[in-house]
Amino acid sequence: MGADLIGPFRNATISVLSTMAATVPVPGEPRQSGDAVHFGAVTGLIGLTSPTAHGNLLLTFDEQSILNVVSRMFGEQILAINQEVIDAVGEITNMVCGGAKRELAEQGLKFDMATPLVVTGNHLELLHISKSRIVSIPFSTPEGKFEVATTLEVQD
Amino acid sequence: MGADLIGPFRNATISVLSTMAATVPVPGEPRQSGDAVHFGAVTGLIGLTSPTAHGNLLLTFDEQSILNVVSRMFGEQILAINQEVIDAVGEITNMVCGGAKRELAEQGLKFDMATPLVVTGNHLELLHISKSRIVSIPFSTPEGKFEVATTLEVQD
Repeated sequence: MGADLIGPFRNATISVLSTMAATVPVPGEPRQSGDAVHFGAVTGLIGLTSPTAHGNLLLTFDEQSILNVVSRMFGEQILAINQEVIDAVGEITNMVCGGAKRELAEQGLKFDMATPLVVTGNHLELLHISKSRIVSIPFSTPEGKFEVATTLEVQD
Repeated sequence: MGADLIGPFRNATISVLSTMAATVPVPGEPRQSGDAVHFGAVTGLIGLTSPTAHGNLLLTFDEQSILNVVSRMFGEQILAINQEVIDAVGEITNMVCGGAKRELAEQGLKFDMATPLVVTGNHLELLHISKSRIVSIPFSTPEGKFEVATTLEVQD
């Protein structure tokens, strides 16, 4: 299959954060994360299904990075991870997934999205048990780092 | 909508653990967990989509509870959470979801499943941002506790 499974998530991440938080995150090189993604302080995740592909999208933020993003979104200084931040991460996850979904549909890959979940807590690991690997893109912003990871698996 | 969204997950959990680990877990009363589920040592989660409903399934195990379950599955004493345990939790999550999916299909609710993810780490919270609530079923076994939670949201 020739679909670009990473670019649409990278593009959607840049677009959503530029629009919502007036910050343009700089993507690093995508990498195979092997079996584990270490969670930052707040992680949004959402499942994806289609007749020919299944997987998940994760956005995991360092504390300072997400506090700065939401402070920009809300136009006021947010100092701690609270319910508003949780909701914002869920919404950002949903929007990034929706943007990637539209771009993937143009490549002929049509997805349904489950509902986003948000997990808080540092020093967790996500360990993925699917046969496919985790591919992640590190992003940097002036204020901190975050990571976008996908586990999409396409049946040929 | 008249679908029973909880019973199929309860039934599938009992069936899968009885078959795989020769232990019959005893379900407690389902409860509305509000916004958060506290994760145990290992948590399996999977997204669900359908034209009319979206959500997630989570199975979260205390350490002792999952070590005993996998020890029974493998027929040898497993003393620590390792990759085999991670894989087993992913597989259990997948099978419970598949069982519930079949029963829900009989009610006319057809789901697609994303791929399972497994998260390790105690003292995490899952904070759910969907409009629907988390409904969870506590289970007890002779060896420990675990919890099955769903966030299914049906569009009427």
